[in-house]
Amino acid sequence: MLYHVRMDVRLPPDLDPAVRDALIAREKEYSQQLQRSGKWPHIWRIAGEYANYSVLDVADHDELHQILSNLPLFPYMDIQVTALARHPSKVD
Amino acid sequence: MLYHVRMDVRLPPDLDPAVRDALIAREKEYSQQLQRSGKWPHIWRIAGEYANYSVLDVADHDELHQILSNLPLFPYMDIQVTALARHPSKVD
Amino acid sequence: MLYHVRMDVRLPPDLDPAVRDALIAREKEYSQQLQRSGKWPHIWRIAGEYANYSVLDVADHDELHQILSNLPLFPYMDIQVTALARHPSKVD
Amino acid sequence: MLYHVRMDVRLPPDLDPAVRDALIAREKEYSQQLQRSGKWPHIWRIAGEYANYSVLDVADHDELHQILSNLPLFPYMDIQVTALARHPSKVD
Amino acid sequence: MLYHVRMDVRLPPDLDPAVRDALIAREKEYSQQLQRSGKWPHIWRIAGEYANYSVLDVADHDELHQILSNLPLFPYMDIQVTALARHPSKVD
Amino acid sequence: MLYHVRMDVRLPPDLDPAVRDALIAREKEYSQQLQRSGKWPHIWRIAGEYANYSVLDVADHDELHQILSNLPLFPYMDIQVTALARHPSKVD
Amino acid sequence: MLYHVRMDVRLPPDLDPAVRDALIAREKEYSQQLQRSGKWPHIWRIAGEYANYSVLDVADHDELHQILSNLPLFPYMDIQVTALARHPSKVD
Amino acid sequence: MLYHVRMDVRLPPDLDPAVRDALIAREKEYSQQLQRSGKWPHIWRIAGEYANYSVLDVADHDELHQILSNLPLFPYMDIQVTALARHPSKVD
Amino acid sequence: MLYHVRMDVRLPPDLDPAVRDALIAREKEYSQQLQRSGKWPHIWRIAGEYANYSVLDVADHDELHQILSNLPLFPYMDIQVTALARHPSKVD
Amino acid sequence: MLYHVRMDVRLPPDLDPAVRDALIAREKEYSQQLQRSGKWPHIWRIAGEYANYSVLDVADHDELHQILSNLPLFPYMDIQVTALARHPSKVD
Repeated sequence: MLYHVRMDVRLPPDLDPAVRDALIAREKEYSQQLQRSGKWPHIWRIAGEYANYSVLDVADHDELHQILSNLPLFPYMDIQVTALARHPSKVD
Repeated sequence: MLYHVRMDVRLPPDLDPAVRDALIAREKEYSQQLQRSGKWPHIWRIAGEYANYSVLDVADHDELHQILSNLPLFPYMDIQVTALARHPSKVD
Repeated sequence: MLYHVRMDVRLPPDLDPAVRDALIAREKEYSQQLQRSGKWPHIWRIAGEYANYSVLDVADHDELHQILSNLPLFPYMDIQVTALARHPSKVD
Repeated sequence: MLYHVRMDVRLPPDLDPAVRDALIAREKEYSQQLQRSGKWPHIWRIAGEYANYSVLDVADHDELHQILSNLPLFPYMDIQVTALARHPSKVD
Repeated sequence: MLYHVRMDVRLPPDLDPAVRDALIAREKEYSQQLQRSGKWPHIWRIAGEYANYSVLDVADHDELHQILSNLPLFPYMDIQVTALARHPSKVD
Repeated sequence: MLYHVRMDVRLPPDLDPAVRDALIAREKEYSQQLQRSGKWPHIWRIAGEYANYSVLDVADHDELHQILSNLPLFPYMDIQVTALARHPSKVD
Repeated sequence: MLYHVRMDVRLPPDLDPAVRDALIAREKEYSQQLQRSGKWPHIWRIAGEYANYSVLDVADHDELHQILSNLPLFPYMDIQVTALARHPSKVD
Repeated sequence: MLYHVRMDVRLPPDLDPAVRDALIAREKEYSQQLQRSGKWPHIWRIAGEYANYSVLDVADHDELHQILSNLPLFPYMDIQVTALARHPSKVD
Repeated sequence: MLYHVRMDVRLPPDLDPAVRDALIAREKEYSQQLQRSGKWPHIWRIAGEYANYSVLDVADHDELHQILSNLPLFPYMDIQVTALARHPSKVD
Repeated sequence: MLYHVRMDVRLPPDLDPAVRDALIAREKEYSQQLQRSGKWPHIWRIAGEYANYSVLDVADHDELHQILSNLPLFPYMDIQVTALARHPSKVD
């Protein structure tokens, strides 16, 4: 099932650079693993903001929450989730 | 270039049903033509709302505006456009 | 799967009373049928407002949208959908 | 009487992990005790967010406030309370 | 139990004056009857706005909703309800 | 003259407990003194939130500001003031 | 006592021009009479909007409400009132 | 002096097409005249919306208001005005 | 030219009292000097809030920005500026 | 392609002055270099606020994001980006 997710990252500017870089590296690896698994088919950078629009494809709400709440950057994020249904005009 | 678009449709409930159905039919055809052309790669129904999230892939802002402002339902829509850049974690 | 839904009904005050009553009757029947089917386990009136909080239990986003968009009052509604996961503190 | 409550938890990311875990453990125990008592019939995790929708069933506003304001996580929460009346379409 | 209620009245300016005056008269009588019954202990005009803050004292949420939803002006109102608990500093 | 006031208290969770308790004690004494003087006829706890609705009865805006800005918790508060006029339906 | 008032006028574009002009003329006369009486010391046009910031100087909230609610344009207005106290830096 | 202006146009979808086209033609002519006069140096279409960002260069607030309030589409517009000062990093 | 300005001051409650008092003293002196110069004709305290409404009378946007951005409390302020034109009903 | 950008800078008031001045100097140099390159044709100070409206002229969303996210002040900024199309009334 498809979920549209907006993630806004709010890292404190005075965060220790080493901690920051490690977090971001872990986040990248975590996301890429899920992308390769097919569970995270889309991720786009919102131009000009430290935020992204993503589409995740997972079994259900619980799996979605499990994935999102384990994002390394989760404690620094504002997240908005929208359930996506099939659009009647969608062309396959 | 990719644009994320949210479209909320606000058709007056007392709109003449025939007018309404014709509008919706023209909207569907218009959208599907663009989808087949590759300019409208994604369109999802926001579950529970007369609204959609779409991603359009067009040359520039002018083409985007030309496409959106000619949507048959445009006069009844609230539209939000977001420019999408490539995400640093994106796996090809 | 569980979905939390807020529905705000905005009927025009000058709507023909007969039309209004028929709509409300159809809405009640539609909702009660779904309640009896187990797909609509909870519905509460938000005290003081023509609005409700509901929890629907359906297979997926598409079924949710199909149910909500066919509510007789749908054209007069503002709807907000939230995907509900299992809470780690939930006691069975 | 039923109260719909939204709780958004905003724990500072740099909170001492031991303090954090202790808080969360106390919160879980506190909530589960109330759930077993029947005063907290519903608690759902809002998928993707450190937040929940709950329904509490208590005698009156004072008891509601006493319960919520004594949540271990209360100092870190934004809380919204809505009074729930019986919906005219509710099927028993 | 005490409920704090904000009522914003939005009468269409082009409403038939006779209909308008009748509505307002019925609203006044309805409110005054409840005030005399002790269920509506406070009602203040928000200076400069066609709105009021009120405090109602009723048995429970259902009675509150029954009273508010039967206000003659209810179809023209935006209403916000807040449950009021006893304040720890309250001096009797 | 009557003023409706909403006070939201945002005490930092990591405030020294002794400082916190002293502040709250001073706040209580300050408020109760004003209540006994008749200048603070109503104070209700907003159920579930560290906030209150109050009605103050003072000579004018200056006295209102002098009272509110000298609340011990004032530096930690968001305050909204509304001027209350007599409601045309008010029953004495 | 001084009240800061923002008035946003929302006249329907399709209002009968004669009705519109008469309303605006009555509004002007009403306002100028109050200005000459000293009760309306300041009125400024918000540049670019059909709105104004005003300062009224009246005895109390009731008089303020009586004046504002009798504005000919009142039914077409959104009004925000703020009580103004003397500023500690004010130079006479 | 420079003013940043956002103009959102909200034409009723059921406006008589002839009236609509005449309005839009008059608006275009009015704007172009001001552009040629140098008072309206910038006008951009907000991609996807019936709205524009403009920069006007006029003598003062009164001239700005006179220009904007006489826009043929003014009755159908929401307008936001921002005063623009010279930026300290501006390169001539 | 007249500018309406709202200034909300958000001083951290744990700011060193000596620093705080010095800032406030400098702010007062700065403001009073401008008031005596005629550039700051109005300043009112928003009753109940650490905020003010002011009207400044300066040559242009640049001078306005220069004055406001050099307020000692500027780093702790949220500021909203509105350009004020002459109101057509204004009585001299 | 043209992008309208609003940048709000929120520097912590207690930031080390040396760090602050260095950041601002680097920001100025960075912006002026882009201005001279033609990629940043407009930058205006929003009068009264530590914010600016800018128009950037770059190849695409990716270049826009690359430029904005490398602003020295980026970690302290809230940024809003709007895609600008050619306005049908634009006079060359």
